[in-house]
Amino acid sequence: MAKYLLNDFIIEEHVKKALVEDIGYGDITTDSVCAYLDNDKIFQVYLTTRCDGVFCGEDVFKKVFEVLAKDKVTVEFYFHDGDEIKKGDKIAKISGFARYILTGERLALNYVQRMSAIAAMSRKYQLVAQKYGARVVDTRKNTPNFRIFEKYAVKIGTGHLHRFNLCDCVMLKDNHIALLGGDIKKAVELVRENISHAHKIEVECDNVSQVKLALEAGADIIMLDNMSIEQMRECVKLIDKKAIVEASGGVNLSTLEEIAKCGVDVISTSAIVAGASTLDLAFDYVS
Amino acid sequence: MAKYLLNDFIIEEHVKKALVEDIGYGDITTDSVCAYLDNDKIFQVYLTTRCDGVFCGEDVFKKVFEVLAKDKVTVEFYFHDGDEIKKGDKIAKISGFARYILTGERLALNYVQRMSAIAAMSRKYQLVAQKYGARVVDTRKNTPNFRIFEKYAVKIGTGHLHRFNLCDCVMLKDNHIALLGGDIKKAVELVRENISHAHKIEVECDNVSQVKLALEAGADIIMLDNMSIEQMRECVKLIDKKAIVEASGGVNLSTLEEIAKCGVDVISTSAIVAGASTLDLAFDYVS
Amino acid sequence: MAKYLLNDFIIEEHVKKALVEDIGYGDITTDSVCAYLDNDKIFQVYLTTRCDGVFCGEDVFKKVFEVLAKDKVTVEFYFHDGDEIKKGDKIAKISGFARYILTGERLALNYVQRMSAIAAMSRKYQLVAQKYGARVVDTRKNTPNFRIFEKYAVKIGTGHLHRFNLCDCVMLKDNHIALLGGDIKKAVELVRENISHAHKIEVECDNVSQVKLALEAGADIIMLDNMSIEQMRECVKLIDKKAIVEASGGVNLSTLEEIAKCGVDVISTSAIVAGASTLDLAFDYVS
Amino acid sequence: MAKYLLNDFIIEEHVKKALVEDIGYGDITTDSVCAYLDNDKIFQVYLTTRCDGVFCGEDVFKKVFEVLAKDKVTVEFYFHDGDEIKKGDKIAKISGFARYILTGERLALNYVQRMSAIAAMSRKYQLVAQKYGARVVDTRKNTPNFRIFEKYAVKIGTGHLHRFNLCDCVMLKDNHIALLGGDIKKAVELVRENISHAHKIEVECDNVSQVKLALEAGADIIMLDNMSIEQMRECVKLIDKKAIVEASGGVNLSTLEEIAKCGVDVISTSAIVAGASTLDLAFDYVS
Amino acid sequence: MAKYLLNDFIIEEHVKKALVEDIGYGDITTDSVCAYLDNDKIFQVYLTTRCDGVFCGEDVFKKVFEVLAKDKVTVEFYFHDGDEIKKGDKIAKISGFARYILTGERLALNYVQRMSAIAAMSRKYQLVAQKYGARVVDTRKNTPNFRIFEKYAVKIGTGHLHRFNLCDCVMLKDNHIALLGGDIKKAVELVRENISHAHKIEVECDNVSQVKLALEAGADIIMLDNMSIEQMRECVKLIDKKAIVEASGGVNLSTLEEIAKCGVDVISTSAIVAGASTLDLAFDYVS
Amino acid sequence: MAKYLLNDFIIEEHVKKALVEDIGYGDITTDSVCAYLDNDKIFQVYLTTRCDGVFCGEDVFKKVFEVLAKDKVTVEFYFHDGDEIKKGDKIAKISGFARYILTGERLALNYVQRMSAIAAMSRKYQLVAQKYGARVVDTRKNTPNFRIFEKYAVKIGTGHLHRFNLCDCVMLKDNHIALLGGDIKKAVELVRENISHAHKIEVECDNVSQVKLALEAGADIIMLDNMSIEQMRECVKLIDKKAIVEASGGVNLSTLEEIAKCGVDVISTSAIVAGASTLDLAFDYVS
Repeated sequence: MAKYLLNDFIIEEHVKKALVEDIGYGDITTDSVCAYLDNDKIFQVYLTTRCDGVFCGEDVFKKVFEVLAKDKVTVEFYFHDGDEIKKGDKIAKISGFARYILTGERLALNYVQRMSAIAAMSRKYQLVAQKYGARVVDTRKNTPNFRIFEKYAVKIGTGHLHRFNLCDCVMLKDNHIALLGGDIKKAVELVRENISHAHKIEVECDNVSQVKLALEAGADIIMLDNMSIEQMRECVKLIDKKAIVEASGGVNLSTLEEIAKCGVDVISTSAIVAGASTLDLAFDYVS
Repeated sequence: MAKYLLNDFIIEEHVKKALVEDIGYGDITTDSVCAYLDNDKIFQVYLTTRCDGVFCGEDVFKKVFEVLAKDKVTVEFYFHDGDEIKKGDKIAKISGFARYILTGERLALNYVQRMSAIAAMSRKYQLVAQKYGARVVDTRKNTPNFRIFEKYAVKIGTGHLHRFNLCDCVMLKDNHIALLGGDIKKAVELVRENISHAHKIEVECDNVSQVKLALEAGADIIMLDNMSIEQMRECVKLIDKKAIVEASGGVNLSTLEEIAKCGVDVISTSAIVAGASTLDLAFDYVS
Repeated sequence: MAKYLLNDFIIEEHVKKALVEDIGYGDITTDSVCAYLDNDKIFQVYLTTRCDGVFCGEDVFKKVFEVLAKDKVTVEFYFHDGDEIKKGDKIAKISGFARYILTGERLALNYVQRMSAIAAMSRKYQLVAQKYGARVVDTRKNTPNFRIFEKYAVKIGTGHLHRFNLCDCVMLKDNHIALLGGDIKKAVELVRENISHAHKIEVECDNVSQVKLALEAGADIIMLDNMSIEQMRECVKLIDKKAIVEASGGVNLSTLEEIAKCGVDVISTSAIVAGASTLDLAFDYVS
Repeated sequence: MAKYLLNDFIIEEHVKKALVEDIGYGDITTDSVCAYLDNDKIFQVYLTTRCDGVFCGEDVFKKVFEVLAKDKVTVEFYFHDGDEIKKGDKIAKISGFARYILTGERLALNYVQRMSAIAAMSRKYQLVAQKYGARVVDTRKNTPNFRIFEKYAVKIGTGHLHRFNLCDCVMLKDNHIALLGGDIKKAVELVRENISHAHKIEVECDNVSQVKLALEAGADIIMLDNMSIEQMRECVKLIDKKAIVEASGGVNLSTLEEIAKCGVDVISTSAIVAGASTLDLAFDYVS
Repeated sequence: MAKYLLNDFIIEEHVKKALVEDIGYGDITTDSVCAYLDNDKIFQVYLTTRCDGVFCGEDVFKKVFEVLAKDKVTVEFYFHDGDEIKKGDKIAKISGFARYILTGERLALNYVQRMSAIAAMSRKYQLVAQKYGARVVDTRKNTPNFRIFEKYAVKIGTGHLHRFNLCDCVMLKDNHIALLGGDIKKAVELVRENISHAHKIEVECDNVSQVKLALEAGADIIMLDNMSIEQMRECVKLIDKKAIVEASGGVNLSTLEEIAKCGVDVISTSAIVAGASTLDLAFDYVS
Repeated sequence: MAKYLLNDFIIEEHVKKALVEDIGYGDITTDSVCAYLDNDKIFQVYLTTRCDGVFCGEDVFKKVFEVLAKDKVTVEFYFHDGDEIKKGDKIAKISGFARYILTGERLALNYVQRMSAIAAMSRKYQLVAQKYGARVVDTRKNTPNFRIFEKYAVKIGTGHLHRFNLCDCVMLKDNHIALLGGDIKKAVELVRENISHAHKIEVECDNVSQVKLALEAGADIIMLDNMSIEQMRECVKLIDKKAIVEASGGVNLSTLEEIAKCGVDVISTSAIVAGASTLDLAFDYVS
C-alpha cells in the first residue's frame, strides 16, 4: 500500500544527497578505527525502539546501507511498515562491516524516526475519525523536499492523502475567488473550462451561502473552512452527498471526534505531520 | 551571523527542487483564474503571525519568489531573522503578480514556519543555559536534506552548533571503542595519528573511570553521556578545564537548568530541533 | 493560458541540457569567424515562417538566447503563442552578437518548429470537435522528457489535456480489471478506498455491459474504447450525464466528426501530438 | 553498430528523468489494484506490432524496466534492432510483477514507437540512395534532449549520420561567410588556422562559383544547397572527387532518386527524423 | 579565441560544484569576523603575480565571485587571457564585500594558477615548433572533469588542440588494428563505412610500411608514433602532403626542435598540460 | 586508510561525468571495429608502469569499467594503493570485452597517473619530515572538483591532511585580523564565540609578537608563516607544546629538512600536490 510513493530510484537519489549532507568528506572517526583492524570487522546490530509506536520506513532504511555499502551490509526486518511496536522490540537486525554500519547509522535513524512518528499520529487521528466513516487527510504543509516520506507515513498510519501538489486537483481558495470579484460560480466555470476533465474542483467555503453557490456550480469537493459544528451539520445536510464534504481548520485530538460526528466525509489537518515529532529508535550493538 | 550556512546558490537549488515537488506540472487553479484576467493582477499580501515567536527564514522566503517569478514579486521585511514577533504582527509585505504569489505561498510558508519554530525552541533552551555560562548545542538528528535550514535556525535562536557532519570532528562512541577492545587510550591515539591536526577529538564516556582515561588520552572534548547530576559534578571537577565538558542525554526543559548548574560547558540535545513543530504563519491578502 | 506548464526555472534546465547536446565543446565554426572580427559583430535576424500555421514557443525561444548569451541578444516577438501565421510572416526580430545568434539558432528553431506543428494540429482537431460541444484531448504518448512542451502546444492550439501522469487521475484499463478477475465494481471500490478523495476514477470499457458496471460503480469518467458509432451513441444515452464520456481509439480527421456527433464529452487521441511533424521556420539574416 | 550512441549509464539517466515525468508521485491506479492482491501478481505480456516496420530500441526498452523494477521484470527479445517486423509479430516477452509492467508500459512504448518509426523512414530513404552509391544522412533538426535516440535510430535504419553537434565538424554557412564580407577563401583559412587538425571543414554553397572558391580553399566537404539537378551535376563534375559532395534542400521521396543519380556522395535531410511519426506497438497481456 | 570552450552556463555549473567542495557548510572564519562588523566591510584587493608568466582564466575567475556574491563583488582586469605578466604585476582589482572576497579567494586562485601555468607551457612549446611551421597539440591526458579549462589554456597559450573526445575524430591505434588481424586497409575501410562523412580518420603507425598502408587506405592523418628522426623524415617525404603528418612520443623541450625540423605538420604531447604545475598568484589586500 | 574519502557512490558520480567528458556521443573508432567482429571480442590487458613510483587509485580505476561496462570487464590488481612499483611491473590485469576496455582506457589512466604521482611526492616529503617527528600536510590548493582524489593520494603516500574546506577548522589569516584592526585576541574571542565547540582555531602569524598574542588568546594551532629558521626555533620554544605549531611558506625538498629540525609539529605545503605531475602508466595488450 502506497508503495508507489517510494519508487526505488527516487529514494536512492534522496539518500545519496542526504549521505553527502551527513558524511561530508567522510567519517573520520570510523575510518580511523577500522583502518587499524586487520580486516573489516563484522558487526551485528539491532534496531530497537525505546517507546511504543508504529514502525515506518523499511525501504529507505535499507537503501541507506545499500547506497553506502552495496552487498556489504544486510538488513533483516522483524516488523514491517505499519506494524505496532512496543518499547524494547527488536525491529530489525543489521549485519555486516562495522565501517558501514557505524557510518550509516544516524541517517538511517533520521528517516525512520520521523516517519514512524508521523505514522503513529496519523493512526491516532484516523482511528477516531473512522468510527464515523470519515477520513483524516493530510495537507501540503510538508518539510520542503521531504514530502514523499511524510505522505507515505500518513498512508502507512492508515490516514489518507489530499492532493499531492498544485497540479492534480483544483482548490479555489478565498483569494482566487476574490480575484474574480467574489463570484464562486464564475470561478468554477472558468476553471472547468481550462483544466483537464480528469481533475476535480474543490471550493473553500467560509459560510453556508458560499456552500450553496459551490454546490450549484457543481464543485466536486466542498471545503468547510473553520466553521462551527452547527454550521458543518447544516452544510452536510444541505450538500446531501452531491459533493464530497471536507472539514478543515482547528482540527486536533480534542475537536476531531465532534467534527467527525457531523457527517463530513473528509477532515484535513496538518497536525498528523507537523504535530508529530520523532520516535526514539536506536541501534543496540551486540558485543 | 550564521549567514555562511545559507549560501545563495545553495538555497536556490533547494528551492528549485522543492518548487517542483509542490507544483508538479504547475498550479492549475491559479492559472485558470489568472489566464482570464486581462492583465496579470497585482496583489499586496502580508506575511503575518498568528502566535508569538521568533522569526527565521528571510532569505529563503525571498528566494522562493525569486526562483518562481524573478523581478515580478518583491518582498519587504519588517522583522528580521532572530526578531521576536507577537501574534498579529505583520512580518513582511509581498507585492506583485497574483499568479506567482498564490503559487509560491505554501512553499514559502513551509520553510519559515519550520525554521521559526526551531529558532524559538533554541532560544528557550539557550536562555536557561546561559545563566550558568553553558551552551546548548544541536545534534545530527536532522530531517534528511534539510540540515542547513535547521542548523541555521538553531543559530538564529542563539543556540549553538555541534559538528556539521562526520568529517569535521571526531566523536568516539562506545561502539568505536568496543571495536578496539574497550581501550580508550588506544582509540584516541589511533585516531589522532590518522586524522588531520586541524580536527578535534571527542570521547563519549558513561562513567567516571572512562572520563579519566579520556582525559589522560588528551581528548579535546569529553561527553558525559546519560550521567546523573552527581556524576556530572564529579566529572567537571575532575576534568578541571583540561577539556571541554559536554553533557548529553535526557535533556529537556525540566532537567536543563540542573544540568547547566553542574558547570558543564556544553549541553547537547536534539530537542531544540526535533522537539519544535511549526509556527502558525499565514498570508493576509489585502482586498 | 497554460503558462503554468512552462515555469521559467524548469525550461531553463531543459534548455541548458539541450544546449550541451547541440554544442558539445562549443561552436568551432562561429568561434573561428567571430574571433577574427575586431569586435563582436552585431546582427539583426528575423524568425520567419515558410508555411502557414500556428506559432508556439515564445518563452523557450527566448530562453535559449538568455542561457547562451545573457543580455547580449534580445528577441522581440511580433506574433505570440497561438497566433495564426502566414507564409512569409516575420514572427520575431533577434538582435545582438552574431556569435550567440549563430550558435543558438538551431536549438531555438528545434523547439518552436515542433511546438508550432503540434499547436496547429491540435487546433485543427478541436475546431471540428467543438462544433458538437466536445473536447479533443491528448494522451501520455509523448516524446520522453519533452512532455511539457508537447502538452503546452496542445493547449495553445486550443486542444485540451488529459491527465499529466500516472498520479493525478486513476485510469482502470482492461489489464487492471483482469487482475481482479474482471470485476469492475470491485476494482473501482478498491481504488476509491486507496486513493485521495481529490482524484477522479476513469474506467476503460469495451462494451455496453462494462459501461453499465462502471456507471453503477460510480466512475467519474467512462472511456469508450474502440467502440462503433452505434455503441457510442447507446452508451452516451445510457450514461446520461452521470459520468464524463470519453471516446478513444481510431480517432483521425476522417472519423473525428462522426465521433463528436455521438454526444461524447471528450475525444482522446495521440494524433494531435504524434501526428504532427515540424513547421518550417527559419532565420532570415538582414545583410 | 552504433551501440556507442546509447551508453548504458547515459540512457539510464534519460530513463530516470522520463519516469519521473510519467509517474509523478506514482501510479495510483496500479498501486490500488496490486496492493489488494496477496502477493505481487506475476504477468506475461508480449510486445507486439500492429503495423509492418523496422524495430528499434531494445536497450532502452529494457532499461525502463530495469530502473523501475530491478530484477523483478525480465524482457526477452525475439526481434532485434534493425529487424523487419510484420503486423502481428511478437517482438518481445515481458515477464514479472504486474505492478511494474503496468507502470512502465507507456514509457517503454514511447521510446520504441518513435525510434522504430525513424528507423523505417531512414531505411526507406537509404534504399533509394544506395542504388547510386550515395548516403542519406540526418541533420541537427532533432527533438531537444532526444538526439541520441534519433541518431541511433537513423543508423539502425541503415541511414548515416552528419556531425553530432557544433564542435565536431566545421560548417560554414552563408551567414558565417557574410560576416567576412563574402570571402569564402578567407573564411576557410581563418577556420583552418583556429580549429584542430582533427576536424573537417564543410562549406555551404548556393552556386557554381561558390563551389569553385570552396574547392580552391581546400574544403573537405562541399554542400550544394538547394541547387537544381543541373547545377548539382555540374558541381559533381567540377569537384571531381577532390571533396565530398553533399546535396541538401528539398529532399523527399519524390526528389531523392534524381538527386542521388547526380553522383553526389551524401544527401542530407531532416525528413528521415522529422518526417517520421510513431510506429503502432502495443502490449498484449496473456490472460 | 577559443571562447567557445568556456560557455558561461557551463563554467557556472563547474564553479558551483567547486564552491561546495571548498566551502562545505560555509566559511566559519570569515563569517565570525564579518558578523561582528556593523556593516559588511568593503575591501579592495589586487590579484598579483609573484612570477613571470602568461595569464589565463579571466572569465572563470569572475564567475567564482558572481556565483558567490552576485552584484556584491566586482572584478576589473588589467591583463587579459594570453597576456604576458611579469613578477609583481597587478592583474586585476577585486572590490566589494570582504565576506565574499575572503571566501572566494582560494577557489578563484586555484583556477587561474593552473590555467596560467598551462598557457605558459603551451606557448613555450609552440614558439619552438612554429619556426618550422608545425603545430604543437595537446592530448586527451587531462585531469578528469577539468578538460575544458586545460584545453582552453592550451589555446590561450597559442598551442593547438587535438580531438576533444572519442567521438569527433577516429584514431586507429595498434590495438584496434590488431583486433582486425593487423590489416590497416580493412580497418580504415570498416571505419569509413561506419562513421559520419564529417569526421576524419587518423592512423597510428610504428614504422614505414604501416605508413604506406595508411596512406593507401586514404587516412586523413597519419601519426608517427615513437619513430626516430630519420624515420620521421622518410615518412614526411613518403606522405608528401597527401595526409596530415603527426609526430607523437618522446616529445619534450630538448627533442621538440629536432622533431619540428623533420617537416611534420603536428606534434602532439601531453607535456604542455601534465608538465605544467601552477603559477604563483596571490591576493594583495589594500589596507 | 583514508577509504572514507572515496565513497563508492561519490566516485561513481565523478566517473560518470568524466566519461561523458571523454566519450561525448561515443567512441566511434572502437565501435566501428567491434561492430564488424562477429562477437564482442575478449581481451586481456595489463596495466603496467614505465617508471618507478607509488601506485594509487585502485577503486576509481575499477569504477571506470564498472560504470562503462558493468559485469563485462573485470580488473584484478597485483599491487594496491600505497605499494611501491618498479618500472615494468604489471599492476593489474584487465579482462573482458575489447569494446569497453579500449573505450575506458584513457580515463582510467588519467585518474591513476595523477593520483600515483601525488602519492609518490607525498611520500618523498613525509619520509624526510618524519625523521624529526613532524607531519607534512597538504593545503586547499587543489584542482577544482578533483580534491577528494588529490587528498586521498596524499594520505596514501603517508602524508597528512590539513582541513578539508572552509567549515571544518578556523584559520585566521592576516586579512581577517586586519578587518578587526589587527587585534589577534579579539579575533580569536569573536571566532570562539561564534563557532562550534567542536572546531579548532588556527592563527597565521608573521612574527614572534603575533605568536605570543595567539598563544595568549588560546589558539589551538599557530601557523608560522614564512618565518626564518631562527624565528621558527624561537617560536617552537615559546609555544612549548601549548599549541600545535605549523610551519608554512617556502617549503621544498631542499628546505624541508631544516624546517623539520626546528621542532615544528606540522609542515604545510602545496608542493606535494601542485608539484606532482603524472606517473607514466600504460596498457599493454596481450596479443
